[in-house]
Parts: sequence; C-alpha cells; structure tokens
Amino acid sequence: MSAITYEHIKTCKQSGARLGIVHTPHGSFETPIFMPVGTLATVKTMAPEELKQMNAQIILSNTYHLWLRPGSDIVKEAGGLHKFMNWDRPILTDSGGFQVFSLSALRNITEEGVEFRNHLSGEKLFLTPEKSMHVQNDLGPDIMMAFDECPPFPAEHSYMKASVERTSRWAERCLEAHARPQDQGLFGIVQGGEYADLRKQSAKDLVSLDFPGYAIGGLSVGEPKDIMNQVLEETTPLLPSDKPRYLMGVGSADSLIDGAIRGVDMFDCVLPTRIARNGTLMTSSGRLVVRNAKFARDFGPLDENCDCHVCKNYSRAYIRHLIKCNETLGLRLCSYHNLHFLLSLMEKVREAIRQDRLLDFREEFFEAYGFNKPNAKNF
Amino acid sequence: MSAITYEHIKTCKQSGARLGIVHTPHGSFETPIFMPVGTLATVKTMAPEELKQMNAQIILSNTYHLWLRPGSDIVKEAGGLHKFMNWDRPILTDSGGFQVFSLSALRNITEEGVEFRNHLSGEKLFLTPEKSMHVQNDLGPDIMMAFDECPPFPAEHSYMKASVERTSRWAERCLEAHARPQDQGLFGIVQGGEYADLRKQSAKDLVSLDFPGYAIGGLSVGEPKDIMNQVLEETTPLLPSDKPRYLMGVGSADSLIDGAIRGVDMFDCVLPTRIARNGTLMTSSGRLVVRNAKFARDFGPLDENCDCHVCKNYSRAYIRHLIKCNETLGLRLCSYHNLHFLLSLMEKVREAIRQDRLLDFREEFFEAYGFNKPNAKNF
Ligand SMILES: [Zn+2]
Ligand SMILES: [Zn+2]
Repeated sequence: MSAITYEHIKTCKQSGARLGIVHTPHGSFETPIFMPVGTLATVKTMAPEELKQMNAQIILSNTYHLWLRPGSDIVKEAGGLHKFMNWDRPILTDSGGFQVFSLSALRNITEEGVEFRNHLSGEKLFLTPEKSMHVQNDLGPDIMMAFDECPPFPAEHSYMKASVERTSRWAERCLEAHARPQDQGLFGIVQGGEYADLRKQSAKDLVSLDFPGYAIGGLSVGEPKDIMNQVLEETTPLLPSDKPRYLMGVGSADSLIDGAIRGVDMFDCVLPTRIARNGTLMTSSGRLVVRNAKFARDFGPLDENCDCHVCKNYSRAYIRHLIKCNETLGLRLCSYHNLHFLLSLMEKVREAIRQDRLLDFREEFFEAYGFNKPNAKNF
Repeated sequence: MSAITYEHIKTCKQSGARLGIVHTPHGSFETPIFMPVGTLATVKTMAPEELKQMNAQIILSNTYHLWLRPGSDIVKEAGGLHKFMNWDRPILTDSGGFQVFSLSALRNITEEGVEFRNHLSGEKLFLTPEKSMHVQNDLGPDIMMAFDECPPFPAEHSYMKASVERTSRWAERCLEAHARPQDQGLFGIVQGGEYADLRKQSAKDLVSLDFPGYAIGGLSVGEPKDIMNQVLEETTPLLPSDKPRYLMGVGSADSLIDGAIRGVDMFDCVLPTRIARNGTLMTSSGRLVVRNAKFARDFGPLDENCDCHVCKNYSRAYIRHLIKCNETLGLRLCSYHNLHFLLSLMEKVREAIRQDRLLDFREEFFEAYGFNKPNAKNF
C-alpha cells in the first residue's frame, strides 16, 4: 500500500473537473487544492497556527533551499520537517531541480546529474536523482518529487526530446533510491514543453513506473496562458484517474480555475506571498495595490466580500500605513489575506464541482475579478 | 472624576513596592507592569491577538511618529488609535518630546515650543505643549503625557534648573490645552536629572497641578544604574501615593525589579523587541544569542523555564535557522518570547509583593540571570 492514495469523490458534469481527497501519513486534504509555499521551512511572514486558521491543508517546502540551510541532516536530527517547523499536516517537497536550473547561472548537466554553484556561497555542488531522494528522505515530507530536468521555454524539439528521455531515466533512478516508500509518496514529473508528442512520451514512460501521483512540470515558465491550457488538455487524459495530479508553480486565480477544469488536483505558487510583500492584494473584484494614496483614508476592509481574520479586523488605511512604514505586520496581514483568498477560492471551486457548475462559477468569478477585460492582469 | 484612577492593593512589607490596579476607559491593568512599545501603531512584528495571548494589558505608542505617519487626522478619522490598530485595551502615548530631542539633530528651543526637522523629510516642524495635546487628543489614548523638555545627561545644574522650570510652565499649558480630560488622563513628567533639589522642585510644581498620574523622565539616558536608583529613591516619595507612577524608557529586567522596589508602577521600553530582531533573547538563566553556531543542533526551547507559546512549540535550532535566513517568523518568535518574558517577570514581581518577599525574589532572579556576576550584561 502506497503512502499516498487518491480517493475520487465526483466529477463535475459541466466541466469535467475532479473532486477528491488525497490521504497521506499526516492526514488528508481535499482537491482541487492550493498549497502555500514555505521555501525555507516557513511560509514567508506566517506562523503555522495562522495557516491552520485559514485552513491550509498542505504546504510545500523547497528541497534545494533546505539542503543549503539549515542542511537536511539538521532537519532529520530534529525529527523531520514536520517537527522542525511545527506543522503536523501534510507537506510536499520539490526535488531541488527547479532551483538548480533557475537560480544557478553556471551549471553542467550530465547523465549522472547536475553540477552547479550554490547561489549563496558560489561553492560547487552536485545534485543527482539519488542525492535528491536522500535529502528528501531526510526532510521527511509526505510527498516527494522526482528529480527532473527543467528545460527553458521555448526549447527546440530535439533538445526537449533528449531532456524528456533523461528525465524518465532519472525518474527510474529516483524510484530505486527512494528509501521510505512506506511513509513518503514519490511523484513523477511529466515534462515535454509545448510538444504534444513529447508530453505523451513522458507521460507514458512515467505511468509505466507506477508512481502514486504525477506532476506536470515545465509550465508557468513564461509561455502564454492558452498554451498552458492546451498542454493540460493534452496531458491530464494521459495520467491515471486514480492518482493525484499536480500542476507545479501556478498560483494566479484564473489558472487555478482553468487547471481544475482540465483535471488538475494540486497547485502551488509563491505568488500570493510575494505580491503581498509589495502591498498587492487579490480581491473578489480584482487586484488592489493598498500602498496607493487613494486608500489613505479608506477605513473599509481589503475585500468587502472576504471573511478572513484580516478583513474582519483591519482597514485598508491601517494596512497602507503599515506597508508605507515597512512594518512587518503589514506584510503579515497582506500575506494572510492573499493566502486565504486562494484557499477560499479553491473551496469555492470544490463547491462548484459538487454542484456541477464550475464553468458557471468560472464565468462569474472572471467577470467580477476583471479577467474578461482586455489586457487583464494575471492575478 | 478623572479618566484614570489608581487603586492601591497592598505594599510589600519586605521591599516597600506597591501592588495596584489602574482603571482606564478601556479597562484596568495591574501594577507594577511592563508596557510593550508600538511606535507606529504596531508592536514591531507582533499582532494584537498575540499581545493579548501573552497577556499584555496596556501598550504604548509614539505621538511623534504617528503625527508624521499616517498623521493624527487619519487616526482620528479612523475612530482613534484603538480602532485604527485593532487594540481594545488601554493605550498610553508619549508627548513627542523625547523623539524631538533624540531624533532631530537641529532643534531650537524657545519658551513657545521646539522647532526641529522631521527626521524623515527634513521639513521644519514646530511642536508646542498645545500641539502635543491636540495630536494626543486626536489619537485618543487612555493616558497622555505632558510635553516636556528632555535634557541630555549630564547637564549643568543651571541648565537643568531652567529646563525644569520651563517643563513646569509647559505642564500647565498642557493641562489647559487638554480637550478630553473626561476620557483621557494626562500625566505630568518629573525632570531634574541627577539633582535632588531640582527633582524636588519639579515634583512639587507638578503635584500642585494635580495630574492623575506622574512619570519620572530623564532617566535611562546613559547614567549609571546606581544613579537611576538613587534618583528614584529621592523622587517617588515626593509623588502622591494615590496616583500611578511611570518610569519612562526602562526595560532591562534588573531595572524593572529595582524600579518596582522604589515604588514605580509602570515601565516601557523598546528593548525586548529591538534585541529580538537581532536574535538576542532574555531567559531565566540570562542572555542568549540564538544566532550562535552552538545552537544549530539544539532542539530544546529558547528558555526551558518559559511556558510561552514559542518555547512550547519551537526549538533553538529552528529559530536560529529562521534568523540566519532573515525570515520574518524568526523575528516574530524572538519578539514574542522577549515580550512574554518581561510581562511574566512583572507577574512574578506582583506575586512577590503579594507575598511580601520582593527582595528575596530579586536575589533569586538576579542570581539565576547572572546580574550578580561582575560585568553582568544589562539585559
Ligand atoms: Zn481578507
Ligand atoms: Zn518563551
């Protein structure tokens, strides 16, 4: 029996989106779901009890960053990531691959793995499928990711084909190196860029390896939204219906809904906390930049349709004041609201699936948010 | 009837320290008490609900800073500081005087008031007793402070005498300008530096004006601890026993205890939050710098004798990791523990007064903390 199992509840008759429950050693979470990102074993500015208060059911953390600081040996000695960071619900870690490819200017890819420079110290490091598994086994998340190559967008077909094939060989090595399959579920990552044939090849290779879940990688890397949606339409049907599907690095409200409609169950992104630190909010009527002078005397909540702790207790004027003064509480309140917004959006998505009306919900949400306007902002 | 009243509960038979309750329009607080400082309408890194969780009964905010940002008109329009910052317990504001004298390099003191430069924009500003009252009436704290001159330490006797006399004249103007005596209590500030005759003169002047409470200013400005204690011993007996006494800007554990022994009821200081942002903690066995490498694998709490939320849930190793990575949660956890430490220390001081054993408690605490060692740190 795998550490991770997917329970299908129902499919939306209108959209085809899936409602489900993923069971893990640290409890279950409902899907489709958004996972807040806690890069360095902390969701930036937030405390675990706040994440629970906003009903975060699973969070993500980054293998690469924790490997460098504090070191996976220290996390292991602490009793694993859950204990180290005081979070007893499910955790997913990525493989480190994405950071190696995006943070390190100098890297050398071989069949064995990737040589690169530590983005903090410049020191030479080597990451392989085996090393990534070892680090993730030390960290101890409920869900681990296979170590994959993350090619740039766009990439030539020939480059992408070689990359997809290497990622499949690495996936096999990951499965072999994984030391704790009984209490950590390892997900494979489908690559292939915008090439339908390569997505097909990648999915076929990985499905044959029988992972307990599958991620779709290489999207949200600069490609237009319609390409992302098209790739999802071509890819999710290739994945087994009894396993969860995770679209990596996607956190704008429109993409979460469009992803769910295309059969995706799990999403993560730093977007809500990153823009919060800038005083930018997601609200039911669109983007709001609370730094703006026009909010100096606005004593209403960030979002009048939001029932989060922040909107119930603090005004735009106060939050603007905090942000203008670089006060930490301002970042906290904005981060809290934005995370709550996406978690609550996914709750609404699940409810719409239950009621077989996700396409209607999409239309209502897009209209209110402003996604239907020409040149709409992405978040 | 004054907005602020002092209820005397008992006097410690061993030390002479006072146990009391101060009643305000936003509820009561027990004395002796430590007040966390929320300079810009936020106690740095903390949320109001955390301050309540650690049982903060009253907080302080700074008139000068709020006058500049967001402006007292905005706070007034929000319904006052309590509503603006979501804090429904008592608030005390200072007069702005201390910041004018400490933050502005260029200032010109006249009988009318002080001309100085805004430390942010360089713009010329003028602060007078009337202006300070006006701003504090707009902010709406339960306790306001009279606008005083804050002379440097040391200062010549002749300079200090002139300053004390001006402060008394300003105190009278403050009382006259105060527009809301029915719901805001105005405290006078006794000055006089280390000169016993001037402290006596200042206290006599202010007591004759019949303020609902008295502060002792001009201490903790660089003078040795024994001078501070001596000034307190000479000054508190000059103050009416049916009014609260507030020692401004003092927050080291030894000074809180020594101040209480000399009849002080209220204290404030940025120390616990300022050193927290550096990863420095106050613990029952003394100062702890959690950044230090020796804590990298220390999975115990910051203070094993502390029952605060942080010590119950997080390890030194995790907090060190957060501080090393500049993660906000690290600053939050350290600030929380330090504030809890001082609030809980004052709870113990009150209990020791109740049991007539504050001198014994002082001895035990000083010994455990390390204050009895030669060259002991101040916090
Ligand atoms: Zn909200
Ligand atoms: Zn503690």
